[in-house]
Amino acid sequence: METIAKTDFVADLTKKSVDLSRWYTEVILKSQLADYWQIHGFQVLRPYGYALWENMQARLDARFKATGHRNVQFPLLMPESLLNQEAKHVEGFAPEVAWVTHAGKEELSERLAIRPTSEAIIMTMYSKWIESWRDLPMLLNQWCSVLRWEKSTRFFLRTSEFLWQEGHTAHRSAEEAQAETMRMLEIYRDFVENDLAIPVIVGQKSEAEKFAGAASTYTIESLMPDGQALQSATSHYFGDNFARAFNITFQDMDGERKFVHTTSWGLSWRAVGALIMVHGDDAGLIMPPKVAPTQVVIVPIRGDDATVVEAVARAEESLRGAFRIEVDRSDRTPGWKFNEHEMRGVPLRIEIGPRDAKNTQAVIVRRDTREKAIVAESALATEVGRLLDAIHQNLFERARTFRDAHVTEADSLVALTTGLKANPGFVIGHWCGKAECERAVKEQTGATIRCIPFDFQNGPGRCVIDGAASEKRAIFARAY
Amino acid sequence: METIAKTDFVADLTKKSVDLSRWYTEVILKSQLADYWQIHGFQVLRPYGYALWENMQARLDARFKATGHRNVQFPLLMPESLLNQEAKHVEGFAPEVAWVTHAGKEELSERLAIRPTSEAIIMTMYSKWIESWRDLPMLLNQWCSVLRWEKSTRFFLRTSEFLWQEGHTAHRSAEEAQAETMRMLEIYRDFVENDLAIPVIVGQKSEAEKFAGAASTYTIESLMPDGQALQSATSHYFGDNFARAFNITFQDMDGERKFVHTTSWGLSWRAVGALIMVHGDDAGLIMPPKVAPTQVVIVPIRGDDATVVEAVARAEESLRGAFRIEVDRSDRTPGWKFNEHEMRGVPLRIEIGPRDAKNTQAVIVRRDTREKAIVAESALATEVGRLLDAIHQNLFERARTFRDAHVTEADSLVALTTGLKANPGFVIGHWCGKAECERAVKEQTGATIRCIPFDFQNGPGRCVIDGAASEKRAIFARAY
Repeated sequence: METIAKTDFVADLTKKSVDLSRWYTEVILKSQLADYWQIHGFQVLRPYGYALWENMQARLDARFKATGHRNVQFPLLMPESLLNQEAKHVEGFAPEVAWVTHAGKEELSERLAIRPTSEAIIMTMYSKWIESWRDLPMLLNQWCSVLRWEKSTRFFLRTSEFLWQEGHTAHRSAEEAQAETMRMLEIYRDFVENDLAIPVIVGQKSEAEKFAGAASTYTIESLMPDGQALQSATSHYFGDNFARAFNITFQDMDGERKFVHTTSWGLSWRAVGALIMVHGDDAGLIMPPKVAPTQVVIVPIRGDDATVVEAVARAEESLRGAFRIEVDRSDRTPGWKFNEHEMRGVPLRIEIGPRDAKNTQAVIVRRDTREKAIVAESALATEVGRLLDAIHQNLFERARTFRDAHVTEADSLVALTTGLKANPGFVIGHWCGKAECERAVKEQTGATIRCIPFDFQNGPGRCVIDGAASEKRAIFARAY
Repeated sequence: METIAKTDFVADLTKKSVDLSRWYTEVILKSQLADYWQIHGFQVLRPYGYALWENMQARLDARFKATGHRNVQFPLLMPESLLNQEAKHVEGFAPEVAWVTHAGKEELSERLAIRPTSEAIIMTMYSKWIESWRDLPMLLNQWCSVLRWEKSTRFFLRTSEFLWQEGHTAHRSAEEAQAETMRMLEIYRDFVENDLAIPVIVGQKSEAEKFAGAASTYTIESLMPDGQALQSATSHYFGDNFARAFNITFQDMDGERKFVHTTSWGLSWRAVGALIMVHGDDAGLIMPPKVAPTQVVIVPIRGDDATVVEAVARAEESLRGAFRIEVDRSDRTPGWKFNEHEMRGVPLRIEIGPRDAKNTQAVIVRRDTREKAIVAESALATEVGRLLDAIHQNLFERARTFRDAHVTEADSLVALTTGLKANPGFVIGHWCGKAECERAVKEQTGATIRCIPFDFQNGPGRCVIDGAASEKRAIFARAY
């Protein structure tokens, strides 16, 4: 992570439109979402950042519980031998694993991996817990942090330790496990689009890009302002790969012993990085209303005026409970507060001065459009609710319009390369399915196949790379 | 942790009255609160156990937020040099620390400690974040797991990894920090007594028993059925010890640069162990209603009878939302279900059979007293609410009566030793404050000073060990 000198004034914020990368780091530090830690690639999540994560967590957790999933806490550490049990899995993760070799003064007899993900841990317990079809499906989820040692890091998007949730389920049949994989993918799409206001493309990963150990991996991909893709959540179907590696069988209704079929799915604080990049502007963050730590900030103008004090108290009273509000009674100037709360991305600001107090009205300012309106005190709660919905809608539409303007089609490698340069974003093109073609694109353009989208298919064609017959189109993009 | 052979029937449960230790382990495994992990001293928290922890967390977290604390997420790892920064702190924790020495294939230049507690991490950030009196108080809390390598372990009570919360605050003055320490101690007392139904003794730790690095440590101590004490939560006042070690200063209103005064306070899943031991009986767990994962289980009798199906649906409808309920529609016999849900400690059971359906009534059975009552359908919700309160009250009174019957007084070391043998529990006696007297008691009886209680003081006297003049009485007990 790049270190930025500490700055105290909003005015110092690098413009997003000038330098996205620098703006991104600065706005995170200035708004106090997160801070650096002494160990490379680690970050501290500060109260404002954690409040955002808590809101995201609550809304996602409610969806998991509504679909019958139950939370658990599995251990942080696993013996090396366990991680080695599924060959492709260990191949994928071992290079990033942090190893515990000593406890106190003693050297351990076998070194222990800090979980980079918990398949090997949870599958071990499944082999103990699952005995009959009555125990299935087993639908578990865990909120925790995991470690994957990274060299090139960036706040939220690539950190050596990250917060996430990982769901792990076991099923009687391949069909049921496949259906679960798709159900959770849809929950992610719904959450990211309807709560974070970020449009996504839904599809399947190529063999080269799938999760280590999975039979198939599905993804939701969002587009950042620089035209790079961000994988925002993934859902994996494992078939019976892990069941065979960890010997997880059950006695079915027909009396036969069978392998279970498993899935896993995860969303991490990368999604925080996505919403910062997608929605923010030159003045700072713009928080999507449904997860904003503070949805409304009330700023008194001439806060020492008794009529203002009373009007602010009335406004607070009418909003408290229904919305996450904050009243900034600090001794800073109103101008300073406006800048500060804009930088923090608070969706709505309410200003109340002596004239407003006298007229039993308030001024409401939208963060996204900066539109101002005068609203009668009596209509405040209704108007706030309406505006928060409108802001969500506008953020989503704005992001979709941008995204759609950055989806191009290509029918050759030249067109694909030119397309990525001329209009960085998602490029759709036919792909025959061969790994060499996928590699050729990566070598030539730096772009990877983000997914085989469920939409954007329009019948057979010719591979943009080698011209072979192709059944599917892929989405190519450079990615975070 | 002792391994118990897997058993399928409640009838196999060792009686609590016969072998507390064995009962404790068995009931945790059978009720599926937790399970063993492959690494010694680590446990898996299963859905039923996690649901309990989630309820505890929610109620405690609400109290923290109501008193202005904000949640954060600090990193899992810290460089060894950082842990070494406060001399007494490292002396206390280093022997239990798990060390990360490698990442992927590379050896690290400095080994990293997995946090045994986060003072050293958080103080480092405080030294960066705190500049002026305006930044104070800083009131943070973190929910996470920490690692302290243990040799002799037991579910929940002593595990090498445990879930907890750790609050860390910084203040302008010693007085304010001291007040915060006491405020959080009172929140713990309120939570443990009023939500977990466990009576506690509140007091201060001796020098020998205080937290490594603290100026003073305060504790709430509960009593287990075998007469051993359990430290249920602690609150530490650090004075400016950590501020000096980590150079945390602020510019005060008078323009002077001063050291902050800090506190920390924690409650872990040991509290789960306490509520299992204190409330359970020969038939299994008894969950205190306020945190019970399931407060009411409805068991249909002749569940294939259409009138029963309808009556159960009506009962479910009238309780859903207001209480955490479960309807057991499985194909097990009612008798099996009664035993199972008793073993899991569900506070109330509602039985509805054909005759109940016909008479629009239900049978309610209390887990704690096994009292049965017939209740009209229309009064169900009211009665359930009343009974849950009554169960909480009864559990608390029962535990307090037991505790009070196990508090004895001693005026000599002989009386103390005899007292601990004749009636294991808390023994109160004068203590002059000398470490040798404290050690003598430990060597002779195995008991430690649990605290200098705020209550139970009755003026000056003579130390029970050496007869020296004493101003305070201490509480002695053997402890988990």
